[in-house]
Amino acid sequence: MNIRVLTETEIRSCVSLDHDVIRAVGNGFTDLHRGNAFVPPVLAIPVPDKHGEVDVKTAYVKGLDAFAVKIASGFYDNYKKGLPNACGMMILISSTTGFPLAVLVDNGYLTQVRTGAAGAIAAEYLSRKGSLTAGVIGAGTQARYQMRALKLVRDFSRLCIYSLYREDVQRYIREMQPVLGVEIAAASSVQEVVEKSDIVVTCTPSKSPYLEAEWIRLGTHITAMGSDMEDKRELFPEVFKRAHIVACDLRSQCFRLGELHHAKAAGVIPDENRVVELGEFTSGSKPGRLTEEQITVCDLTGVGVQDTAIAMLTYQRATEKNLGLLLTS
Amino acid sequence: MNIRVLTETEIRSCVSLDHDVIRAVGNGFTDLHRGNAFVPPVLAIPVPDKHGEVDVKTAYVKGLDAFAVKIASGFYDNYKKGLPNACGMMILISSTTGFPLAVLVDNGYLTQVRTGAAGAIAAEYLSRKGSLTAGVIGAGTQARYQMRALKLVRDFSRLCIYSLYREDVQRYIREMQPVLGVEIAAASSVQEVVEKSDIVVTCTPSKSPYLEAEWIRLGTHITAMGSDMEDKRELFPEVFKRAHIVACDLRSQCFRLGELHHAKAAGVIPDENRVVELGEFTSGSKPGRLTEEQITVCDLTGVGVQDTAIAMLTYQRATEKNLGLLLTS
Repeated sequence: MNIRVLTETEIRSCVSLDHDVIRAVGNGFTDLHRGNAFVPPVLAIPVPDKHGEVDVKTAYVKGLDAFAVKIASGFYDNYKKGLPNACGMMILISSTTGFPLAVLVDNGYLTQVRTGAAGAIAAEYLSRKGSLTAGVIGAGTQARYQMRALKLVRDFSRLCIYSLYREDVQRYIREMQPVLGVEIAAASSVQEVVEKSDIVVTCTPSKSPYLEAEWIRLGTHITAMGSDMEDKRELFPEVFKRAHIVACDLRSQCFRLGELHHAKAAGVIPDENRVVELGEFTSGSKPGRLTEEQITVCDLTGVGVQDTAIAMLTYQRATEKNLGLLLTS
Repeated sequence: MNIRVLTETEIRSCVSLDHDVIRAVGNGFTDLHRGNAFVPPVLAIPVPDKHGEVDVKTAYVKGLDAFAVKIASGFYDNYKKGLPNACGMMILISSTTGFPLAVLVDNGYLTQVRTGAAGAIAAEYLSRKGSLTAGVIGAGTQARYQMRALKLVRDFSRLCIYSLYREDVQRYIREMQPVLGVEIAAASSVQEVVEKSDIVVTCTPSKSPYLEAEWIRLGTHITAMGSDMEDKRELFPEVFKRAHIVACDLRSQCFRLGELHHAKAAGVIPDENRVVELGEFTSGSKPGRLTEEQITVCDLTGVGVQDTAIAMLTYQRATEKNLGLLLTS
C-alpha cells in the first residue's frame, strides 16, 4: 500500500489561496447543505497545564474518493519559545477501503487557507458588491489570509486594521500593503474600524465581546471567525439583533462553539432555523444579501467539509505532479 | 520541525507483543484509574455505503511527553478485493507544543498488539492461575494476538477454537500450533469451547449474542473483546448475571459501545459502579479474582490510553535506534 507523504513546502507549491480553493470549499458547503456530508462533532483534547488544545475535525462526503481527518493544535504559550501557537496535519483516508492515502504535514497551512476561503464565501454572498473599505480586527496569520481571500471576491481599495498589539499592526502593514496593493491604515480602536468599513472581519482569540452593535452602519457585513471554542467570543449579542441576515458555516457547531452559542444564551436568536448556512448560498437555494442597507453577520467555526475539500485538492495536484514521498508500508 | 515517519516494517522491528507492552498498556490503565488521563468519546465516521467505519481514539495522559491520536478503519467488504478489513495509523503529538512528533504508519498493527495486551491484563487479574485450557471464539487476526498474549500470563497447554469458518480454523491451527507450542483442537460449537475451557476469549464481529450463561462452569474467566460498536455483541445478558466479578476497560465507553451496553439494557447490571475497571487491578486498588470458583467476565472496547502507551513505547525505541524517516517540514 502506498501512502503519499507531503511536507508543507510541497503542499505550498501546489495549493494556495485562490479561486480554485474558494470553489472547492464552496462545493464542500454545498455538499453539507444537500445532506451529502457527515460531520461528527469536533473531538477536542484539552491540555490545560500547557494552555493548549488539540482538535480533530473530519467530514465524510458521499461521492468523494476520500475524506480528511485533521489534527489541529493551538498551544498558546508556544510563542514564548519562539514557536508558532498553531500547528496540525491532515490524513486523507480512502472512502472505498478506509486505508490512508496521504499524510499532509502542512503544519496548519491548509487550515489557514480553507478558513480564508470560507471568509471569502461569506463576503461574496453577504457583503455589498461595491464595498470599498475592508476592516480587520487582529493582526495575526488569519487576519492576513482573511484579507487576501476577501480581495479575491471584493475589490476593496482601503484596509483599516486594529489590534491590541501595535507592533503586530506595523508588521502587518509593512507586509500586507504590497501583497494586497491597497492602502492600510492603523485604527485607534475597534469602533473606528467598524465605523469606517463596509466589511469587517474579526480574527482574534478573544474570550470577551468587544464589537458593539451601535457602531455598525447600515450596509455593513461582519464575519466573526475568531470563536471556535465554547469560551471564545468577539461580538456583543446586540449585533445579532441588528443584523438582517445571520449566517454561519454549520448551525449545530456554531450554536455549540461559535458566536451563536453566546447569542442564543443572550436570547437574541429567537429562531435557530432562521440562521442561514453558507451551503444554502453556495448551492443557490438562498440568495444572500438583498438590499444595500442590510446588516449581515456570518459566524465561522471551521467545518470538516472545508478540510476534506482542500485535502482532496492538494492530493490531486500533488499526485499529478508526483510530489512528495511515496511510502510503501 | 522534525517528524519521525515509521513504516509497519520498522514498527514491527521495535515493538512486539511481550511483557514490556503488557506493562506499558497496564500503566495506561493505571493512569486512567488515577484520573491522570483524559479520554474523549470515540469519534466515529460511518461509511455505510461501503460497509465501513473509521474511528478516531485518543488519550492525553498527564506527565507523558506526548499522546497518540489514532485513526482506525474497518471496511468489511475489503476482503472481497483481497485486502485486509482493518487498517489505521497513529499520530504522536507533543504534550508540550501540540506539534506532531511522529507518524506511525502501522496499518493497524499496534492496535492488534495493544488489544492483545489488554486481554492479557484481564486474564492476569481475573483467570485462575492454574488455567490449563484456553478457548477462543473466532479465527481472525485478533484471535491470534489474544492467545499469544494470554500465553505470556497463563501457561495453558491446550487451546480449543470455534469459528463459523472451518477453513479459517484449519489455517489458525496450522499457523498457531507452532507459535503457541500447544495442542489446538477445533470444536464443533461455541458451547463445546466454553464447556472445555478455563479461559474463553471471544473475538468476533458478531451483532447477535451467541455465548450462553448456562454453558459456563464455575471458575471460568471470559473476555469479550469483539464488541466495540453499539450494534456488536457476543454474550447473552445472563452471562453477566452469573458472573461474580464483571470488569471492563472503561466503564463510560463499555456502557455505550460494548457488551455492557446491551447487558444494562437487559437489566442485568443493577449497579454500574460495581463494574470494575482494569486500572483498579493494575493500580493495586482492587485484588481481582478471589476464589477458584468465581466466574469472571471482562468487556473490552479498546481505550485511547492503550494507543498512547504503545505509540510512546514505539517512538522511544525507534528514536533510540534512529529508525524511519526524519521529515523536516
